[in-house]
Amino acid sequence: MSEDLFLKIIKREIPAEIIFENDRVLAFRDINPQAPLHVLVIPKQHIRTINDITPEQDAVLGEMFRAAAQIATAEGYRDEGYRVVMNCGERAGQSVFHIHLHLLAGRDLGWPPG
Amino acid sequence: MSEDLFLKIIKREIPAEIIFENDRVLAFRDINPQAPLHVLVIPKQHIRTINDITPEQDAVLGEMFRAAAQIATAEGYRDEGYRVVMNCGERAGQSVFHIHLHLLAGRDLGWPPG
Repeated sequence: MSEDLFLKIIKREIPAEIIFENDRVLAFRDINPQAPLHVLVIPKQHIRTINDITPEQDAVLGEMFRAAAQIATAEGYRDEGYRVVMNCGERAGQSVFHIHLHLLAGRDLGWPPG
Repeated sequence: MSEDLFLKIIKREIPAEIIFENDRVLAFRDINPQAPLHVLVIPKQHIRTINDITPEQDAVLGEMFRAAAQIATAEGYRDEGYRVVMNCGERAGQSVFHIHLHLLAGRDLGWPPG
């Protein structure tokens, strides 16, 4: 797999079902959904893992969370609730090394979270 | 339960095992840990849910993620990996209405995440 599959999605070099976009953030449906709503929210700038976030990149994390809330609202899950998850490293399940926030909703979400 | 149990932890009105603090972020061990490392990272400012994050609050989300990375590093999980999770609303499991990022590490973390 490409080191950064998601940059190809941002550049429309490979297809994805994009449901949100602004200057800094993009969101598209997960191709292997784990819930009725399962979307990946990514920054357009390349950030490899959570370990690599710099202070200059702080705000884009908030933008990703606000995009998740906006998508959850648009899809009818604002009040029912939703979960956001980010994995760091292969043991936690990170398979693409460009940070991505999983947004899941539409079913009971158990605890622990994996 | 208090509307904002976590403000009481910030003010040291109730005890918690605090392991990270700066001017804007606090982190302490979850009292019901779901992994060898299970920490809650919170903003000191009150934000009720993900739905309530304003653009002015964007940067504190990044600070919370960098605090999570710093804690994971200090606890020896930087390279092995870790997962961060935030719940929004009761159906997703949010029980305290002050946003908190769960940081989990130290075991295999399955998929789906709950």
